[in-house]
Amino acid sequence: MVNINFTPGPSQLYFTVEDHVRQAFKDGVPSLSHRSKAFEKISTEATEGLRQLLNIPQGFYFYFTGSANEIWERVLQNLVEDQSFHLVNGSFSKRLYEISVLLNKHPHKLEAENGKGFDANIQIPTGTELIAVTQNETSTGISLPLETIYKLKEDNPSMLLAVDAVSSLPFPDFDYTKLDSVFFSVQKGFGLPAGLGVWIVNEKCIAKAEQLLAKGISIGSYHNIPGFQSHALKNQTPETPNVLGIYLLGKVVNDMLRRGIKTIRQETEYKAAILYQTLSKHGLINPFVTDSMFQSKTVIVANTGEHTEKITKFLLEKGMQPGDGYGSAKKTQLRFANFPTHSKEQYELLVDSLNQL
Amino acid sequence: MVNINFTPGPSQLYFTVEDHVRQAFKDGVPSLSHRSKAFEKISTEATEGLRQLLNIPQGFYFYFTGSANEIWERVLQNLVEDQSFHLVNGSFSKRLYEISVLLNKHPHKLEAENGKGFDANIQIPTGTELIAVTQNETSTGISLPLETIYKLKEDNPSMLLAVDAVSSLPFPDFDYTKLDSVFFSVQKGFGLPAGLGVWIVNEKCIAKAEQLLAKGISIGSYHNIPGFQSHALKNQTPETPNVLGIYLLGKVVNDMLRRGIKTIRQETEYKAAILYQTLSKHGLINPFVTDSMFQSKTVIVANTGEHTEKITKFLLEKGMQPGDGYGSAKKTQLRFANFPTHSKEQYELLVDSLNQL
Repeated sequence: MVNINFTPGPSQLYFTVEDHVRQAFKDGVPSLSHRSKAFEKISTEATEGLRQLLNIPQGFYFYFTGSANEIWERVLQNLVEDQSFHLVNGSFSKRLYEISVLLNKHPHKLEAENGKGFDANIQIPTGTELIAVTQNETSTGISLPLETIYKLKEDNPSMLLAVDAVSSLPFPDFDYTKLDSVFFSVQKGFGLPAGLGVWIVNEKCIAKAEQLLAKGISIGSYHNIPGFQSHALKNQTPETPNVLGIYLLGKVVNDMLRRGIKTIRQETEYKAAILYQTLSKHGLINPFVTDSMFQSKTVIVANTGEHTEKITKFLLEKGMQPGDGYGSAKKTQLRFANFPTHSKEQYELLVDSLNQL
Repeated sequence: MVNINFTPGPSQLYFTVEDHVRQAFKDGVPSLSHRSKAFEKISTEATEGLRQLLNIPQGFYFYFTGSANEIWERVLQNLVEDQSFHLVNGSFSKRLYEISVLLNKHPHKLEAENGKGFDANIQIPTGTELIAVTQNETSTGISLPLETIYKLKEDNPSMLLAVDAVSSLPFPDFDYTKLDSVFFSVQKGFGLPAGLGVWIVNEKCIAKAEQLLAKGISIGSYHNIPGFQSHALKNQTPETPNVLGIYLLGKVVNDMLRRGIKTIRQETEYKAAILYQTLSKHGLINPFVTDSMFQSKTVIVANTGEHTEKITKFLLEKGMQPGDGYGSAKKTQLRFANFPTHSKEQYELLVDSLNQL
């Protein structure tokens, strides 16, 4: 019987979700019209709650999609005419690069060695319109320091900067004035059922999409930025969206606001610290990312080698589900999500258990 | 207090949904990995259930999207290089035409008069690759006879035929051998929370998408047909999908299989007949679509003119929520969804109430 799920996504639900679902059905949320005042209120609760929780300034707007994969596509369609640039350090950043290829956007990339980060000085090719970075690589547990990300924009102020924070938010305390777009999906750090992505853009992104459209370049249809924006200004969406998902996001964000983002971030730091400490002192297993500057606080990857199956079985017997290693590391690594729903006590139990090995 | 919701979407939930949601949380469905055997089983329950319920032959495949709006885009991206053709008879078929414009697919259209259908002989321009029809227009309550749709394909066998059945399925008993693609969203006839579209394609659609890709034409990225298909063959999806939505779809489809599609269709016919009869004999209100050949059985539109507000208030007092007229008809029409979740007794109550006016 699994009581604690450490897989990095879909994650363990935030502990209040089931109660909110019950209330949603009681209040008829799943049958609400997405053109009603009641829906606009639900949408506003989610977006203004996120603005407060993540300290997002005015001039940034929130768009709802079906997934973060969809946002990958929309970012490239709307913000790139001819040339994107990608920092690639794992399977998900690589996939974003490949999506740019599929959309005929002629991407360039800088690829890091597996499990490593990037140098401080990164040269971006002339003609790049969009720099895309995966702030937290769910596949490898590499996290880019915020200063590295901000420097990309400082050195290249005419380019747009889009940040994939799928498996890190609400943990990173971004300075949103130093980037143009951030996005995530709700089934990771927010602990919600999958089926909703959140795309945050500033006015420079809106202007770029409008420029492309004026040139006769297709930027998509129902989910292009002008369509998103005209509906977002009314707290609506272009299509009938995942109304229940947006409702649950607003409720969980409010729960997090009550708990306090500072507390959530401090607890995340604490939990990450005790697990990395355990891994670095352990006889059988060790952290995959060794440079602490690049160690993700929210997705912690352990080299477990030939002990992988044994450790998985051992943890499962104690009611804990670790995440498999990603792709080719499936049988040699384990991944541990460290999201707001994971309590300090659960992490202490995990660490104590690993120490018994 | 509203007990019965006749809005045509999002609709009243199918009456078993809340119980299935409870079971889903009990079984940990929202935290399931979309790469697990458990998810593949959930996906198969939905797709094979739909195949049985709707009598869909082998050689057709099921793809899950975020909405039917997304499918509009995917249909055009994947099945059209240069030229689509659209039968337009309301706001939703018009929107599909407009999406083709936004995607630079050079569409042609034949537009019907408001509230009317089409002649039996429709000339399709040479060079058309895809014929798109909206079998049931949610905005106007116009439904195209199946024979009209099949004839388009018979007369133009080299063209692909895609059918928007968003607000009619599971009612229409399509002969799938006479069309190439059908799609719907779950928040209408299936009575599920919004946030999931189902796209059904045959092998000709797959071949067409592959042809476009081989020519270097972008057919989208994570949700293009080759990507959908390679995952569908494993009962998976390209991205983390709305797992809970797919689970609920499978459960409701099974409930409908137990009830019997024949019974569901007969009851739909009965409910539509008593409402149209009431409207056609009523002193104050009358059916918007007058030619019975084109009267939708699943979305019934009434001209309510100056009485609209009074009738709405009268029905609300009796616990019944009618749907507003669409767009410019908001204050002069009412729409009544006639979906499987609406019982005969509920329709008899509606008809009795209207007769008291």
